[in-house]
Amino acid sequence: KTHCDCMSSRQLIKLPGFIDTHVHVREPGATHKEDFNSCTAAALAGGVTMICAMPNTNPAIVDEESFQLVKKLADANARCDYALFMGASTDNYNTITEFAPEAAGLKMYLNETFTTLRLKDLTVWSKHLTNWPKRWPLCVHAESQTTAAILLLANLHNRPIHICHVARKEEIQIIKAAKEKGLKVTCEVCPHHLFMSTNDIDKLGPLKSQVRPVLTSPEDQQALWDNLHIIDCFATDHAPHTLEEKMSPNAPPGFPGLETILPLLLNAVHEGRLTMEDIINKFHRNPRRIFNLPEQPNTYVEVDMDEEWVIPAAMPYSKARWTPFTGMKIKGSIHRVVLRGEVAYVEGQVLVQPGFGQNVRDWEPVKKPTYLDSRPSSALD
Amino acid sequence: KTHCDCMSSRQLIKLPGFIDTHVHVREPGATHKEDFNSCTAAALAGGVTMICAMPNTNPAIVDEESFQLVKKLADANARCDYALFMGASTDNYNTITEFAPEAAGLKMYLNETFTTLRLKDLTVWSKHLTNWPKRWPLCVHAESQTTAAILLLANLHNRPIHICHVARKEEIQIIKAAKEKGLKVTCEVCPHHLFMSTNDIDKLGPLKSQVRPVLTSPEDQQALWDNLHIIDCFATDHAPHTLEEKMSPNAPPGFPGLETILPLLLNAVHEGRLTMEDIINKFHRNPRRIFNLPEQPNTYVEVDMDEEWVIPAAMPYSKARWTPFTGMKIKGSIHRVVLRGEVAYVEGQVLVQPGFGQNVRDWEPVKKPTYLDSRPSSALD
Ligand SMILES: [Zn+2]
Ligand SMILES: [Zn+2]
Ligand SMILES: [Zn+2]
Ligand SMILES: [Zn+2]
Ligand SMILES: [Zn+2]
Ligand SMILES: [Zn+2]
Ligand SMILES: [Zn+2]
Ligand SMILES: [Zn+2]
Repeated sequence: KTHCDCMSSRQLIKLPGFIDTHVHVREPGATHKEDFNSCTAAALAGGVTMICAMPNTNPAIVDEESFQLVKKLADANARCDYALFMGASTDNYNTITEFAPEAAGLKMYLNETFTTLRLKDLTVWSKHLTNWPKRWPLCVHAESQTTAAILLLANLHNRPIHICHVARKEEIQIIKAAKEKGLKVTCEVCPHHLFMSTNDIDKLGPLKSQVRPVLTSPEDQQALWDNLHIIDCFATDHAPHTLEEKMSPNAPPGFPGLETILPLLLNAVHEGRLTMEDIINKFHRNPRRIFNLPEQPNTYVEVDMDEEWVIPAAMPYSKARWTPFTGMKIKGSIHRVVLRGEVAYVEGQVLVQPGFGQNVRDWEPVKKPTYLDSRPSSALD
Repeated sequence: KTHCDCMSSRQLIKLPGFIDTHVHVREPGATHKEDFNSCTAAALAGGVTMICAMPNTNPAIVDEESFQLVKKLADANARCDYALFMGASTDNYNTITEFAPEAAGLKMYLNETFTTLRLKDLTVWSKHLTNWPKRWPLCVHAESQTTAAILLLANLHNRPIHICHVARKEEIQIIKAAKEKGLKVTCEVCPHHLFMSTNDIDKLGPLKSQVRPVLTSPEDQQALWDNLHIIDCFATDHAPHTLEEKMSPNAPPGFPGLETILPLLLNAVHEGRLTMEDIINKFHRNPRRIFNLPEQPNTYVEVDMDEEWVIPAAMPYSKARWTPFTGMKIKGSIHRVVLRGEVAYVEGQVLVQPGFGQNVRDWEPVKKPTYLDSRPSSALD
């Protein structure tokens, strides 16, 4: 299949640049798993033009020194645009607030997972909820009853909160009830919880299938689809580990996801389970609004709605070299990605270099996007 | 010391009959630890004239059959008055609600503890919170972040909830914040969390000191005293195990407490840490109001404020045959207990027999107490 074949015979749709607010870049500290270069290449290959990078690196991003370190690494190596989370620790609630306008947001880890940043004590939760400015995002890893617990604290402190990777019926139901009561809560769901369940564990095996939150029951999975209107964002929780690490006895939890999320979502449109409007709302507009992110000028993604393909053993750009979605039949692919006027990706090739990506928190606040003249359809807002 | 000595030389104060809303009677199923006979004798010896019995027995009290069984056992064997909790299970949320007016309340176990009744799933919590009638008590074992989680659900369901055995700074602080926000929450604190801490573990050893919630840090302990105005009730969580069981490798968690709670509280009055009004409010008036319990006519406790004694290795009536408070110097003792006009206890002797105790949920609702003419002081309300 040549480029010309594709252009002449396929239905191409122009969509906005997608925003993945939950990405583990692994740099600094574990660049054999991923780094800013490989991670942002994978992002662009997946139609993602902006990522928010999680702070559970090594060192963790919890103070000025580590924040400046990761800023330099990202500035030199990112190919797509980005913002950088800071992590809440047991003792940094007074010192990090000054960096709030420069960060993607604050991330609080409230359950056991792949991090050193676990916060157990409600009094520490309260201090972070009080101190982190209300206009800047605050995200939590909070599973099951922890979802309910942090919702109470956020409510008592009257501040908005974003719940990461909602995976269970009990979680989406409590968020639904909280929204109905007027609480300021938003949430995201990952493709592996939308498109996989415990039914897939046999195929993946007990090691590769490790992820947090775990793969949940078909009933939990169905509850996510039944409550699609409660889900504000799609986000990958791209959490690459090498295949060798995933096959080792203490397999670390996490899946790569940047290169597969948009194809999976497009396929769901074909299946009638999602509308294109759902994808644009939950993977562009809502992340932008909730995380207070700027519009990227002259930025869009062209997708081919008709290309049929099978997800291979590994996607090309992530260093993970494996994907949990291998073998899935997909209709829909990413044809071209334009980022700030440059062709960043086309037909399998990432064309922009490390360093092309910009920290969007360095951008001047603009009242109106500057690219209105080039707006091709309502799909670009 | 004879009775006459005591009457002539000591300062006796008349107090209302105390109400312990958190008692593990151990009958049916573990009557070698305790039974209605021994438990209610211990209650009377401790100035407690009414107990609410917890449902984590064997069988657990979760359906009509088990509820009728424990009613019969209590009716035949209790010496003091009582009400009987029902336990929330994963599947009884539709069937038990009809028994609400006959029960002390509904007990939900939300953390791992000495029970088979643990509830993990928020959707099950929600069903119980929805179905159990709002005018009947609903109590929870909910530690640390689980306290916050159940407070959110109770708030979303707009129903009152009672938090058992608050033990930690984070717990009392979140309850304080919830009360300030207008949430319908009440709570109780146990004597072993008020008067003991991790500092006492060396003395008791790692086995005997096992209790849930665990003995907490001196900082947690101080937070309870600093927030005395937030504490609605004192309750023992009387949870007897035999000394042999407590010294075995898998020592079960729990302390006996019925015979020591009032002496410990009176001693705290001597030390200036509590007022007599605190004791009456938190160990009689508030339990009565929160649990919708009737006034017991012609019922009072005479205490000797001046008697000094040391808590022995074991108190006389509980089958536990040990106490965690052994060796503590106490000023204040229980002289006489009158229950519905009968001298139920005097000078170390329990005088009423098994079967004297009544299920207060069988009583006709009365608008006014009938013993107003005998009211000796404002201490009896
Ligand atoms: Zn093409
Ligand atoms: Zn997470
Ligand atoms: Zn994550
Ligand atoms: Zn837009
Ligand atoms: Zn006497
Ligand atoms: Zn308990
Ligand atoms: Zn208990
Ligand atoms: Zn009274």
